[in-house]
Amino acid sequence: MTRQQLFEQIKKKESFLCVGLDTDVSKIPPHLLDFEDPVFEFNKQIIDATKEYAVAYKPNIAFYEAMGSKGWDSLSKTVEYIPKDIFTIADAKRGDIGNTANMYAKAFFENMPFDSITVSPYMGEDSVTPFYGFNRKWVIILAATSNSGGLDFQDLMLENSSEKLFEAVIKKSATWGNTNNTMYVIGATRPEVLLKVRTLIPDHFLLIPGVGAQGGDLKAVCKYGMNKQCGILVNSSRGIIYAGKDENFADQAAAAAKKLQLEMSNILQNHL
Amino acid sequence: MTRQQLFEQIKKKESFLCVGLDTDVSKIPPHLLDFEDPVFEFNKQIIDATKEYAVAYKPNIAFYEAMGSKGWDSLSKTVEYIPKDIFTIADAKRGDIGNTANMYAKAFFENMPFDSITVSPYMGEDSVTPFYGFNRKWVIILAATSNSGGLDFQDLMLENSSEKLFEAVIKKSATWGNTNNTMYVIGATRPEVLLKVRTLIPDHFLLIPGVGAQGGDLKAVCKYGMNKQCGILVNSSRGIIYAGKDENFADQAAAAAKKLQLEMSNILQNHL
Repeated sequence: MTRQQLFEQIKKKESFLCVGLDTDVSKIPPHLLDFEDPVFEFNKQIIDATKEYAVAYKPNIAFYEAMGSKGWDSLSKTVEYIPKDIFTIADAKRGDIGNTANMYAKAFFENMPFDSITVSPYMGEDSVTPFYGFNRKWVIILAATSNSGGLDFQDLMLENSSEKLFEAVIKKSATWGNTNNTMYVIGATRPEVLLKVRTLIPDHFLLIPGVGAQGGDLKAVCKYGMNKQCGILVNSSRGIIYAGKDENFADQAAAAAKKLQLEMSNILQNHL
Repeated sequence: MTRQQLFEQIKKKESFLCVGLDTDVSKIPPHLLDFEDPVFEFNKQIIDATKEYAVAYKPNIAFYEAMGSKGWDSLSKTVEYIPKDIFTIADAKRGDIGNTANMYAKAFFENMPFDSITVSPYMGEDSVTPFYGFNRKWVIILAATSNSGGLDFQDLMLENSSEKLFEAVIKKSATWGNTNNTMYVIGATRPEVLLKVRTLIPDHFLLIPGVGAQGGDLKAVCKYGMNKQCGILVNSSRGIIYAGKDENFADQAAAAAKKLQLEMSNILQNHL
């Protein structure tokens, strides 16, 4: 998907909502366990119920790997099922040397039709660049994450530069790709970081997890993170997909997604 | 596997060789393609041919994911097939927030019987600690990697400490686990780094890739990296598993593994 197509979708749906498909078979409504592939059935109903409000879906790969080869099949069916005009993110946080990164790119970009993959920057340039060069595919680089451990190393001050590690990661990696194929993960729990990030990369899209269960505030995120093309995708996982626990789970997921979309619509109307 | 069991195996086999199972279906001998699961058949024959010389096997998870759910089955069969007295490493380089890291731990430690997993430290403590608490399982943390991009961020100097990022990673993460459940990845291409690392963590085991195809020198690695319990596992992947390209591939892999084991045996005799 191109940047322009993503922006058009944001304007049309008045939403920058990404729904995280962290589907845990032990948490889905019990009646789904009678289906041949309960995880796919759950995702299918969640997608049907929320696709009007979401511009992106983000399956969290760990949850599928925890089910072995069956989980991999559920993942594959899920990403195939997502409507082609909605942006898809393989939340895999991969990062390895070149020939290995090529294999991960094959897994998520060739064998499955994901639009993007999240990657870890720790191993540097040759661990990230193999994900480029796929037409209309995106690399989403971890920069400042929403978890408590995000402070352990990402916030370390570097010598002679007055900058933190995550700033160095952004500045250097921004030269590997461009605004049409690279996004950054910036946690919603750290709005002050967004302000800093926008001085470094005013035009890149940011993927912002941490609204909802992790405590991030949507308004603060938008105030400091948005740009002229919206420029942010805000993810909610558990707050939407587990909004309901029984046979009405899809309706309740739709209601939770709609509530966030309405907040986003208000913000967008004042912003764009 | 316990640290003592690993050390006993090293002494018994006079080897600290880890064989990397980076099995690429496009590179295996063509006659194997007639088997129902060519990748597993290749691994099985490689394991049979090299298990006398190797103390560890390290499947590179990317190569299996690139084949989808079939690859996951090949991986699962492979790790089940490896003799229980040989150390197994899921080279996955995972790193994500707590509830996601739990899922990766489930995938590799519960659903599959891996002894250890490689993890990326970029997201900090709560992305690593969920892998602890499994009896006799190990976490192998990326510190200073063997690829060119390893210099991009790992070698950045930190303010007011005269240390590099990888040193801070080692010092901080060493407090999360202990020498019985934690190892570090240090690339063989950087022997000067090993010297520094041993001042920080004299007793931990190190997993050292980069000997062979990537150019690392075994003698230098041993000189600077070994400790009284050997303390290093040296990985070779392509140099062993692709030593031969035809029906004799397993014999040639055995010969390549034996050659390395003999070098290791000589070094151990002078060292222990």
